[in-house]
Amino acid sequence: PLSKLSNVGTTIFSQMTQLANENEAINLSQGFPDFMPDPELLNNVDHFIKKGFNQYAPLGGMIALKEEIARKIENSHQAAYHPDSEITVTAGGTQAIFTAIATFIKKDDEVIIFEPAYDCYEPTVELFGGIVKRFEMKAPDYKIDWIAVKNLISDKTKMIILNNPNNPSGKILQEEDIKALIQLVKGTSILILSDEVYENIVFDGKQHLSICKYPELKERSLLVASFGKLFHVTGWKVGYCAAPKALTDEFRKVHQFNVFCVNTPIQLALAEYMKNDEHYIHLNQFFQEKRDFLRKGLSGTSFELLDCEGTYFQAVKYSKISDKNDFDFASELTINHKVATVPFSSFYKNKLNENVIRLCFAKKQETLERALENLSKL
Amino acid sequence: PLSKLSNVGTTIFSQMTQLANENEAINLSQGFPDFMPDPELLNNVDHFIKKGFNQYAPLGGMIALKEEIARKIENSHQAAYHPDSEITVTAGGTQAIFTAIATFIKKDDEVIIFEPAYDCYEPTVELFGGIVKRFEMKAPDYKIDWIAVKNLISDKTKMIILNNPNNPSGKILQEEDIKALIQLVKGTSILILSDEVYENIVFDGKQHLSICKYPELKERSLLVASFGKLFHVTGWKVGYCAAPKALTDEFRKVHQFNVFCVNTPIQLALAEYMKNDEHYIHLNQFFQEKRDFLRKGLSGTSFELLDCEGTYFQAVKYSKISDKNDFDFASELTINHKVATVPFSSFYKNKLNENVIRLCFAKKQETLERALENLSKL
Ligand SMILES: CSCCC(=O)C(=O)O
Ligand SMILES: CSCCC(=O)C(=O)O
Repeated sequence: PLSKLSNVGTTIFSQMTQLANENEAINLSQGFPDFMPDPELLNNVDHFIKKGFNQYAPLGGMIALKEEIARKIENSHQAAYHPDSEITVTAGGTQAIFTAIATFIKKDDEVIIFEPAYDCYEPTVELFGGIVKRFEMKAPDYKIDWIAVKNLISDKTKMIILNNPNNPSGKILQEEDIKALIQLVKGTSILILSDEVYENIVFDGKQHLSICKYPELKERSLLVASFGKLFHVTGWKVGYCAAPKALTDEFRKVHQFNVFCVNTPIQLALAEYMKNDEHYIHLNQFFQEKRDFLRKGLSGTSFELLDCEGTYFQAVKYSKISDKNDFDFASELTINHKVATVPFSSFYKNKLNENVIRLCFAKKQETLERALENLSKL
Repeated sequence: PLSKLSNVGTTIFSQMTQLANENEAINLSQGFPDFMPDPELLNNVDHFIKKGFNQYAPLGGMIALKEEIARKIENSHQAAYHPDSEITVTAGGTQAIFTAIATFIKKDDEVIIFEPAYDCYEPTVELFGGIVKRFEMKAPDYKIDWIAVKNLISDKTKMIILNNPNNPSGKILQEEDIKALIQLVKGTSILILSDEVYENIVFDGKQHLSICKYPELKERSLLVASFGKLFHVTGWKVGYCAAPKALTDEFRKVHQFNVFCVNTPIQLALAEYMKNDEHYIHLNQFFQEKRDFLRKGLSGTSFELLDCEGTYFQAVKYSKISDKNDFDFASELTINHKVATVPFSSFYKNKLNENVIRLCFAKKQETLERALENLSKL
């Protein structure tokens, strides 16, 4: 009776990182870079701390940062958000997602989730008494069947959660997906929570189609992004939620009582750093080289590469190597071959096993080389 | 139908700070220091950032910080918490409070709150469908009538929220209060959420009686504290929740999906700084001097001083000056006399007005002098 989340354990990312550490394995499981962020950004923090910016930020965020966020969104997606009343700085993308769900989901509200799904969505919906309706995207192409999705919609559908580019599959939404989505929500009051924390990591010249590009979607959407992924500082825990004023007003009511505000000097450091667009426009190229290096290395092994259009995760099938389920396989890979990964079944409520694991390539060259050396022995 | 918190506005602290800024008033409203934190602590952040600690912390917090927290609690209150499984680092005291309520409060659970109460407790309980039962503590002594509290208890009572030392009244719990509380919860499964963020700011040689000192209470308590208040860095947003393992296990299930973890380099900077107890044992004395200076200055005015046993807030009655309600009085004081304060009615659901306002004295000497100059004209 004490537990509201009785079937929830410790998140898979912590589990796998712990297993990696215990086994001194190369950690390609939890998604974080193992290289240094730009020294200029690091210096900025010291600058603002020493200048004395160490007290509460306004609850919506430092205006300097909100303005840079608005400018970035305008430049990237030609979409306008009012910095002061439509952008809220959050303690990471996760807090933005949690708060968005907390703000809008009531008992018996239905929420549509596309699996494989990042593991915080479903328990958070549950925590607020919401009911999850799932569409399972499947290997190898993780396509969305929009007719099947339409069948999940009812008059209780309150929210659709998107994750684009998708973690863990690495797939991005296509123009045709967006069109189908527009048709789906037309005439309804369904909200969209769009987790786009990997928006700046898209490959092969492909376009990330942000929800905010489409007025029919933007008006009902909460757009979430993260500086951790953008600037290689996952441990700083700063992200944001951009949404029309009416939605932001409600979001902030909860935000103010959840964390009140976010680290002041870090916000100012990010704002200063964002003034120069060069600091993120190269990101696609930067990670594409890492992706290509990993893919090239794996193509000589028995692992089968799935598409990777975005994010810093590569999905691989290991059916030719083992018929174990993916959790057992990933555990053995960590213990015996010293490479930690994340089993895809962790991203499905029903633990769908398609013999696929996820490798994070946000790692320095040397780390990827060592991992490839171990993996090529399988 | 969109809003889950339809009767909630922007927190009074943001409102008053904004009014202060608009009117170029001295801001004694929102509680934050206007002086620099210790340069040693500031340097620590730069040190750990440059050393490369910029990625995710473990979800419970950095072990170095959890160990220092456990040591501090042991030294201060002779209570033992296991650093790894009973202490969780949070994004400020507020996030610890929100997460504790999120973790345990279900629809129709009753929660007992003592007013005047910090303004995040009640809406957070509401957000999870809980029902607030209030006991109003009143000027001038803000005593708790434990028989009246006992009458609020029912078989639906799930949690009691304490704030000790109390913000805004500045009162601390006495041995007799603790005894009454022990009797009250004996044989029940009522949880206690104890917000002790001002635990190190207690005056006149009085003792802060932490909930964790009493085994009968500790076993059912979530103890919340904040580094913002301890080290003059309210804008860093780091706090913690200490609780027995069974409670911590549940707390972390929600915490991991709310913020996942807290800023890594800041955690390490705090851990390093905490190794030296000198860094906080002088705090009582430091703030007592500020309190005494403010009280001395006010004693020559028409404001009537209420007791201040702890926190960095001084409550004053202004009945001799005006019969306006406290919100209007505080607004006028900001606009016409350039001193921003917080009206006590904001801390009561029913907006109880006893002509009392709250002044924050976590300010440098010069700020307090200027404020006193303005206030003495009334
Ligand atoms: C919050 S830890 C998980 C980090 C991440 O984004 C991932 O590994 O998918
Ligand atoms: C979160 S802003 C309020 C700060 C504070 O503790 C207070 O003023 O009471």
